[in-house]
Amino acid sequence: MTPKVALVMGSYSDFPKMEKTLAIFKEFDISCEVRILSAHRTPRETAEFAEKAHERGVQVIIAAAGGAAHLPGVIAASTVLPVIGVPIPLQTMNGLDSLLSIAQMPAGIPVCTMSAGGGGPENAALAAISILALGDPTLTEMLVTYRKRLAAKVLERDSALQWKITATEVIEREK
Amino acid sequence: MTPKVALVMGSYSDFPKMEKTLAIFKEFDISCEVRILSAHRTPRETAEFAEKAHERGVQVIIAAAGGAAHLPGVIAASTVLPVIGVPIPLQTMNGLDSLLSIAQMPAGIPVCTMSAGGGGPENAALAAISILALGDPTLTEMLVTYRKRLAAKVLERDSALQWKITATEVIEREK
Amino acid sequence: MTPKVALVMGSYSDFPKMEKTLAIFKEFDISCEVRILSAHRTPRETAEFAEKAHERGVQVIIAAAGGAAHLPGVIAASTVLPVIGVPIPLQTMNGLDSLLSIAQMPAGIPVCTMSAGGGGPENAALAAISILALGDPTLTEMLVTYRKRLAAKVLERDSALQWKITATEVIEREK
Amino acid sequence: MTPKVALVMGSYSDFPKMEKTLAIFKEFDISCEVRILSAHRTPRETAEFAEKAHERGVQVIIAAAGGAAHLPGVIAASTVLPVIGVPIPLQTMNGLDSLLSIAQMPAGIPVCTMSAGGGGPENAALAAISILALGDPTLTEMLVTYRKRLAAKVLERDSALQWKITATEVIEREK
Amino acid sequence: MTPKVALVMGSYSDFPKMEKTLAIFKEFDISCEVRILSAHRTPRETAEFAEKAHERGVQVIIAAAGGAAHLPGVIAASTVLPVIGVPIPLQTMNGLDSLLSIAQMPAGIPVCTMSAGGGGPENAALAAISILALGDPTLTEMLVTYRKRLAAKVLERDSALQWKITATEVIEREK
Amino acid sequence: MTPKVALVMGSYSDFPKMEKTLAIFKEFDISCEVRILSAHRTPRETAEFAEKAHERGVQVIIAAAGGAAHLPGVIAASTVLPVIGVPIPLQTMNGLDSLLSIAQMPAGIPVCTMSAGGGGPENAALAAISILALGDPTLTEMLVTYRKRLAAKVLERDSALQWKITATEVIEREK
Amino acid sequence: MTPKVALVMGSYSDFPKMEKTLAIFKEFDISCEVRILSAHRTPRETAEFAEKAHERGVQVIIAAAGGAAHLPGVIAASTVLPVIGVPIPLQTMNGLDSLLSIAQMPAGIPVCTMSAGGGGPENAALAAISILALGDPTLTEMLVTYRKRLAAKVLERDSALQWKITATEVIEREK
Amino acid sequence: MTPKVALVMGSYSDFPKMEKTLAIFKEFDISCEVRILSAHRTPRETAEFAEKAHERGVQVIIAAAGGAAHLPGVIAASTVLPVIGVPIPLQTMNGLDSLLSIAQMPAGIPVCTMSAGGGGPENAALAAISILALGDPTLTEMLVTYRKRLAAKVLERDSALQWKITATEVIEREK
Repeated sequence: MTPKVALVMGSYSDFPKMEKTLAIFKEFDISCEVRILSAHRTPRETAEFAEKAHERGVQVIIAAAGGAAHLPGVIAASTVLPVIGVPIPLQTMNGLDSLLSIAQMPAGIPVCTMSAGGGGPENAALAAISILALGDPTLTEMLVTYRKRLAAKVLERDSALQWKITATEVIEREK
Repeated sequence: MTPKVALVMGSYSDFPKMEKTLAIFKEFDISCEVRILSAHRTPRETAEFAEKAHERGVQVIIAAAGGAAHLPGVIAASTVLPVIGVPIPLQTMNGLDSLLSIAQMPAGIPVCTMSAGGGGPENAALAAISILALGDPTLTEMLVTYRKRLAAKVLERDSALQWKITATEVIEREK
Repeated sequence: MTPKVALVMGSYSDFPKMEKTLAIFKEFDISCEVRILSAHRTPRETAEFAEKAHERGVQVIIAAAGGAAHLPGVIAASTVLPVIGVPIPLQTMNGLDSLLSIAQMPAGIPVCTMSAGGGGPENAALAAISILALGDPTLTEMLVTYRKRLAAKVLERDSALQWKITATEVIEREK
Repeated sequence: MTPKVALVMGSYSDFPKMEKTLAIFKEFDISCEVRILSAHRTPRETAEFAEKAHERGVQVIIAAAGGAAHLPGVIAASTVLPVIGVPIPLQTMNGLDSLLSIAQMPAGIPVCTMSAGGGGPENAALAAISILALGDPTLTEMLVTYRKRLAAKVLERDSALQWKITATEVIEREK
Repeated sequence: MTPKVALVMGSYSDFPKMEKTLAIFKEFDISCEVRILSAHRTPRETAEFAEKAHERGVQVIIAAAGGAAHLPGVIAASTVLPVIGVPIPLQTMNGLDSLLSIAQMPAGIPVCTMSAGGGGPENAALAAISILALGDPTLTEMLVTYRKRLAAKVLERDSALQWKITATEVIEREK
Repeated sequence: MTPKVALVMGSYSDFPKMEKTLAIFKEFDISCEVRILSAHRTPRETAEFAEKAHERGVQVIIAAAGGAAHLPGVIAASTVLPVIGVPIPLQTMNGLDSLLSIAQMPAGIPVCTMSAGGGGPENAALAAISILALGDPTLTEMLVTYRKRLAAKVLERDSALQWKITATEVIEREK
Repeated sequence: MTPKVALVMGSYSDFPKMEKTLAIFKEFDISCEVRILSAHRTPRETAEFAEKAHERGVQVIIAAAGGAAHLPGVIAASTVLPVIGVPIPLQTMNGLDSLLSIAQMPAGIPVCTMSAGGGGPENAALAAISILALGDPTLTEMLVTYRKRLAAKVLERDSALQWKITATEVIEREK
Repeated sequence: MTPKVALVMGSYSDFPKMEKTLAIFKEFDISCEVRILSAHRTPRETAEFAEKAHERGVQVIIAAAGGAAHLPGVIAASTVLPVIGVPIPLQTMNGLDSLLSIAQMPAGIPVCTMSAGGGGPENAALAAISILALGDPTLTEMLVTYRKRLAAKVLERDSALQWKITATEVIEREK
């Protein structure tokens, strides 16, 4: 069975940064194929993958890339499926090149851009799931539960601190 | 009938920039409600709107904002629907503040960020339609046709130029 | 007794960076509540906190956040109390996203933005104290004393170096 | 009678940009003195002004400057009063130099930085009023009313649009 | 006869900015084909063009694009011919997105990036000619002459000013 | 007689921006030669000029350039005279390229960099005069007078406003 | 025999970053001379090198530099050979100064700019080889083979992952 | 005897970065006083220092600072002596805030800005010496010798590599 989501990376070296994406899909029990395809090194295979993704049953494509990060845009050029782009920050330019190369797409070919660094990889999965959830109420419920858990963790941390009103106490407790 | 897409702007002054979004929806015959809601001036109404959007039948939310552009993130915080953010460039900072404030969301709360300036408003509509198309094959066909028309315009322009091989002729023709 | 200042962070992971804020409050013997509240993960609780802060007797709110740092602006949207925003630099973007997301607020909803990195956390406390001092002359005196101590440290360092006029000597002394 | 707020500008050419600050003070019936003092051209007078502001009864100082915008920091160095800095964007650097020169203050000397461009001048007044309101409940009420009016304008605009559900109609109405 | 240089633009709207490129080719009597091909709207035609350029006899490809400027990189991915990229500055981001999207290519697929704005279009032609000149000594001579003419213009301007030594005189002459 | 200062520009088109430099020299009655020399178009003449400047009696060189602004650094490479660099902002990049290309010189070859845009041209002249003043007490006096006049203008403007304490009056007076 | 390519660095400390350039030349069996020449410290020798490169038989010059990276532009000013610039990122400014100082050349003197950081050094070699290949079909074949090998590596990695369709398995395999 | 140069730092923590400045002065046998004075923590002492520097016999002032780096500008505001500013890069913002806060001075009060990071500290000393050399021919000679030594090191390195023409050999030698 074709998975509903495809996660494409330009290089295997991006894999560790995108494991969080897969972890979210695992948590939501969503099958996801992982592809290593480069807009620059395997342009034909990349275009072919994008052209056929829809008929194969893929519903959302996530593409991660850094630097002159053309992969998400190149895939979006060959499919009308929703494409989510994840800018991978490289050592130089602090992620700004990756973000701008993915976000600043011309009219006609949208790429849904996530954060450069930080929560980008998780959010790519969650954005994909929010899209899939439109046709699958169970996923909506799971997303709601996921959000509640996120909230619960914050509130738990908050209430653990809250009875410690004076700064003195808080600081002492931390040491 | 509730429209499938909601387009939210923080200020009516953003309206002219977002007319292209509406033009695309009109072209695809997709109903879209237009809301003026501010993350900062009407926080309650904004949260309420986001919280109820799903049960009202909205499927995708587009939020446009500039500067410390919190609107897309604030809406995303109160819904699990897909949220598309459109950074509106203001006079200062060249759109960089709008883009970063929308794109750099923390893990857990994704916003699908479009281009700051340029094709952002059109692409927000097209991204929304690509999402809706997952449950509506007619929309997929319309998107494919739209893309073909985009391509045709490029190719038409290209072939009009192509028989003019020498630079001399091209330049002369232009004058 | 409700403390006069509330320090809100979007995540417990920001706590170590904000300990300097608490250390200043401790030094000035000002009670401060510490809250973990996220604009994105706990939007309701955050809004509720902000809406009730004034009637609870809070006088100044400090909010620290990084990336698309919406927390200070979201809190400011639901209170007319002075809100001080502290941009937390994340690994990507060098603090620029945090600073712009907090500083570039639209007309109507001010956030008093501190430095991204460097003295931001200390200065948030000192700015809060300068505000409280308007109604409490003792605090003014304490601030004056604090400044004098800062100056004294600089001058002490300066005079320790000053009698060593030639570069040769200074360098030798340092080694 | 000494006004409670002092608005200081480095150059008379900044005056037109800061008229919105004064308009807010007028609306809230808060007296405000306007000073032209330059950190670079009149350093002594600027320091003297800052040193004496407190004993003269000034409660909040607003300082606006552009480029290497030292004025707010230089004033903050000579007073423990709350200092609000307004970055004025100049033609070059898009306001980034003004913002960084004001916001990135070292530990010990806080400046409450407003937006570069956009709502900076209004927000400087509103931040000052939120500070003064801690000792004057009437001002708090006025701020609440002001916020309500801001919200009302947004909601009015919103409801004017809201019954126009389809994009078609909205677009047609606009033309 | 196939021209030796191909100038590709993603959109006809870039044409006016690239006329200077053609003017240089005209001056050096080098035939140049002009193509409108979009990495995003006509990905197949673009790839096909790039794949066949070499066998058709094209020797250098110049590609101009703005925003998330993928065209030069996408062409470079499908040819081993030298590819020269010209970043076209758009209204937002001041050309920074165009420059980074073209320059920051990954290892393996070089793009020779020109200036964003300013002399980029002329220099693309001159860089192409410097490449062609390796196989055509006449072009080298023409380049040397071109440079001499550039230098002569500077020196002429210089000597026209030079006998006017005092500032007074120069200023007076200008008025 | 060789003038004490040389003002070098890479292009005559920079002349209007540098007229303020000459106006200052005129005011201080300092002779200044104006040269059009390009680091890129007339590299030899530029190097020669720099190499001979000292023996000709020039004491300070001011070099203005924009974009990849190499002129000040290239001149500094061929002289041990003080070199003052003036970054000229071009349309793209907002002056950031000009500033960084001039300021970020490697160890060994200093360039005294002025502001990009704003007061850069005036300050280049004033910095040169402050250097010349070390050997000419009259110039020091003139600089002191110049500063006093700058201060006087500020204070005059300030006192004209100062008796108008309430915001109301100030605003009314302006209209 | 004079090598066809010259690789020039402003400082020996850039050598480790440029070893990848040499490794590519070695792989393609292209002789390359390595020169340490500084635009700022040895301006004469640098100019002389550039002036004579053509007559010595050099066909392409690669110049690497960081900060106010004038070396490529200074060399380009004294030769009509193709000049490839490699921006070396330094600790400050994240490579932005190096990139802008090399890319933003004025009309008339082109520099083919590579990526700052990342694949810049390899791509400089590959761009040079693509230029040399215009006169040497063997090199074209070698480039095609090189590209095929790059593609093969990507595809190999891709197929190794591909049969592992579900996220679960992929993640488990990685641990 | 008062030294001819004063090196001022806002904080003792900047000392290690400025030791290279002192090392250069030692090498040129120029006496230099080192002061710790803060524009923000000791504004009065800083102003007093600047006001009296000239009559004490100081000829050039070097001021180093980071972040909202006001020290050089504040000193320049109270003296007509040449002031050299050294931007110290802090952890956040990559030195951009330090550079802009020092370089972007308004008309009337020049600061000679050095590189942020890299050669800034050395160049501050060399710029000061180039200024002092106008009144002291021995210093000019020493500067010429210093430059020659810089050049010699480059050329030595260059000739050590130069006979190793093929890339193969160079790489082998390095391993």
